[in-house]
This record gives sequence, C-alpha cells and structure tokens, in this order.
Amino acid sequence: MRKQTKISNAVIKRLPRYRRYLNELRKKGVDKISSNEFSHLTGYTASQIRQDLNNFGGFGQQGYGYSVEGLYNEISAILGLDKEYKLVVVGAGRLGQAIVNYTYYYKSGFVVKGIFEIDKNIIGKNINGVEVMDYDNIVEYVENEKIDIGVICTTRDAAQEVADKLSFAGVRGLWNFAPVDIETPAHVAVENVHISESLHSLVYHMNKNDEGTEKKSRKK
Amino acid sequence: MRKQTKISNAVIKRLPRYRRYLNELRKKGVDKISSNEFSHLTGYTASQIRQDLNNFGGFGQQGYGYSVEGLYNEISAILGLDKEYKLVVVGAGRLGQAIVNYTYYYKSGFVVKGIFEIDKNIIGKNINGVEVMDYDNIVEYVENEKIDIGVICTTRDAAQEVADKLSFAGVRGLWNFAPVDIETPAHVAVENVHISESLHSLVYHMNKNDEGTEKKSRKK
Repeated sequence: MRKQTKISNAVIKRLPRYRRYLNELRKKGVDKISSNEFSHLTGYTASQIRQDLNNFGGFGQQGYGYSVEGLYNEISAILGLDKEYKLVVVGAGRLGQAIVNYTYYYKSGFVVKGIFEIDKNIIGKNINGVEVMDYDNIVEYVENEKIDIGVICTTRDAAQEVADKLSFAGVRGLWNFAPVDIETPAHVAVENVHISESLHSLVYHMNKNDEGTEKKSRKK
Repeated sequence: MRKQTKISNAVIKRLPRYRRYLNELRKKGVDKISSNEFSHLTGYTASQIRQDLNNFGGFGQQGYGYSVEGLYNEISAILGLDKEYKLVVVGAGRLGQAIVNYTYYYKSGFVVKGIFEIDKNIIGKNINGVEVMDYDNIVEYVENEKIDIGVICTTRDAAQEVADKLSFAGVRGLWNFAPVDIETPAHVAVENVHISESLHSLVYHMNKNDEGTEKKSRKK
C-alpha cells in the first residue's frame, strides 16, 4: 500500500467527489483534463484541486493537465476502492431494506453478505437475495466471514450497542444510518450519515428563494 | 416569515445538525445548555456555534446559555421545518423504493404523495401505501397537488430531463439521488445527495487505521 502522510478530513471528503467526476469523464471517453476544466466541472477552484492532489504527490503534468484514467485509478487506490469489501446490515426494517437496496444499486466493490434482525418474524426471509439472520449470531458470523463493514440501520436507542458488538466482532468500519452519532474504538472507523440534513438544507434554500424572488405564476 | 440576511452555505449545513442535537436534548428533558456543553456535544467550537447563531440574532443569554426548546424552535423556523411539505418521488426502482422507505421512516413534516415511473409493469402498484403513477402525467399532478419537492431516483441519464420537467411543473426544490449533479433554474433549490461518498470516506479511514495500528488479533 502507498505511503501516506496525514491528510485532513476535508480533503478526504473531496476525493470521492473528484473520483465521481473522473468516472463520468472516463465513461465519456475523455483522456485528459486541465485543472481549470476540472475546476469548472467540480465547482472547486483549480488551486484547491492542485493543493488537494499535491497531498498525494500531484499527478498533473505542466501544460498537459491530468490523465483522467490515471487520476481516477490513483484516487481509487488512495481511497482503497481498488478492493472488495464485505458488509453486514443490522436492522431489516424499512431503513435497513432501503440501504440494502441502495448498496445493491451501487454495488461496485461492496457486497452485502447478510442482514441481521431481532424480529423472529423476519429472520429467515431474504431481501434482494440476502438472507435475514438472527442478531444473536452476529458476532460468530462477522468473525467467520471476516466482515469488513457493519451498516447500522437500527433505531437510535439500539445503535451504540450494535456498534459495540460489531467492533468487538472485528469489523474495521461502521456506516451508521441510525439518527444518532455513534462512537467506536480508535481502530474502528465510523461514518455517521444523516440524509435528512440535506433535506433540511434544501427546505431552507427553497424558502430563501421564495423570499427573494417574485412568486411564480402557479396558482396557489 | 422572519427577515433574513444572506447566510453562508456552510452555516446552513450546520443548522440541521444543531437542530438534531437539540432535539435529542429535548427528548431527554434538558431545558438549557451552555455554549461549551453544546460545543462538546456537536463537536464544533463554542465560538463557531456563537458565530453561527449570531447570524440569526443570537438566542443565547450571558451566564445562562441556550434554551433548548427555544433554540430548537428558532432553528426549525429558520430552516422552514415548522411547515409540511408535499413530495413526489420519480423512479420506483430499488433506489426510489429505498427513498420512499427512508422518507416514510423519518416522516416528520414530509409527505410522499406519489411515485412516478415509466415502467408499465410497476404503474398502479403501491409502495408503502403510496400509489405508483404514470410518469406521463407528472406535470398535471404536480400542478394540481401543489407539490413542493421532487425527489429524483432515476438513472443518471434521465435525471436532468426529470429535473427540467419537475421545475417546469412548479416544484420549489429538488432532492436528487441520481449519481449526477443536476442543474435547476434559479428559483428551484437543489440538493444533490451522494450517499456513496460517505462510504468511500469510511473505506479510506479504515485503511488508514490498518496502516497506523498493529493488526488486531483476529485471525485472517
């Protein structure tokens, strides 16, 4: 694995976005892109982009720009997206099913191996071809199957306990969708996702728009 | 509606998070909180929090701190979360079903009125009690039902066209889950959500952890 220095979290948050745009360019058959063009596309300044990529050794060539395929592969490797990861989802309720669906939809590199649930009525069923298993057996399963990532789709109240159990069982990362920020031991990475926050930002901007502009002609 | 000056996007992104923590405090029966305590809880500095809230006129009292219920209500009103919003979801595939499930799960203030689809085999069915309708009729429906927000759960290729149609029909905001950034007229707000980006950040941090720490005792 490449040698890496300590990179700020803000940079790490931008890399998946860079990668996404590069992927789109790849699919369109674009070979290279200048930092100015890439700036225009991503909405970040060219100097921001150069600075971010210099953290990892640059990749750009003066007067040429960036190789789309090259930079895509480099960022993928930096993020660790050149490998496959095994996931378990905890909670087979609406939220858990939604996330299994979502992960299935964007399946590249991430495989949901099992869903765990305490509700005996749901255990044994399957969701998108993934078996719903008894939460009582999760530690053994995670150990045996060498699961990398636990996805927490439980209620707020259960989330921390599930996180503790998964950390004990040996996952390396937790992707938490319960509406509470969970804490993990230092060796277990965690991302707390709050989709509703983007909806709340949206509503704010909608209402700002309505204040600032003439009402549209739609009859209300 | 309260008078508001121009607030930076970064502040607006933090408000839903402040609100979420305040909601947790409310539910625990906490009446007031100092800016230091609130800083500890949210992970933002006390000075950052004070600065953010000063954009809207403060709310804190010297030597008392913030009223939890009061600040929660103020932030809700600033964001526009003291009202109800009507949504339509476009795309009844895995992703659309996932988002309907998700919105249903976090239903406060947001009502999914209809799901629109081009696949004739799915039209007429229902998902979580919401009818799947023919995408051909979406403009009329959005106009008649005075839909506020369109949720885009289509493929990447269809997303911009759907956004254009919904904007024409009169939605005030678009919540986009298709894996592409869509553009809207100035009077239509948009939030492009890329859940996979948080998964990619997670993987980066997992791999960093593995470099920095001794391997755990788990047999691999």
